[in-house]
Amino acid sequence: MSTIDKGNRVLTLINVFTVEPEKQQALVALLIEATEQVMKHMPGFVSANIHRSLDGKKVVNYAQWENMAAFEAMRKNSKARPHMQAAAELAQFEPILCEVSDAISIG
Amino acid sequence: MSTIDKGNRVLTLINVFTVEPEKQQALVALLIEATEQVMKHMPGFVSANIHRSLDGKKVVNYAQWENMAAFEAMRKNSKARPHMQAAAELAQFEPILCEVSDAISIG
Repeated sequence: MSTIDKGNRVLTLINVFTVEPEKQQALVALLIEATEQVMKHMPGFVSANIHRSLDGKKVVNYAQWENMAAFEAMRKNSKARPHMQAAAELAQFEPILCEVSDAISIG
Repeated sequence: MSTIDKGNRVLTLINVFTVEPEKQQALVALLIEATEQVMKHMPGFVSANIHRSLDGKKVVNYAQWENMAAFEAMRKNSKARPHMQAAAELAQFEPILCEVSDAISIG
């Protein structure tokens, strides 16, 4: 389980992948594998939350890192790069680096 | 605080707004106001999590609804419409309806 909170001082990376529907499941599997095998063992990893769009055309990774330095170190890591290249071969992607302005929920 | 979980049977709406940086803060304020005044009082609302991109060019609303019927009812609600129109005047947006494939976190 992951949490979103205004008080969380994490760096949030929302990565929106545009994919052909017949490749959506392969991209989901690749992102889960990359997270389990590599990302989650890196310093500063907090969470990765892989979403599939209902229309089949998008995959969204809502990821959290402790801070920008941890995120940058991951991007330069030689173990992470083959997974990122494999994702780039399956889909176009648009990473959005952001922070939480507000988290409003019931209860 | 909001949670992301594979077992959550919620509908997730990831709405990516593209905005001029000088209008980013106004859009964030508008989305928070719309959530507090209207959305969170509607049946089936679970959470809305407003993010601002560090480069100023995007705002992302990561929202959760109990199910598609609740989301569709909100879209047709006359109280919600003026807020959605105001957002559309400030920014272009691309809503992505999705479900959680996996949520992987530390600890």
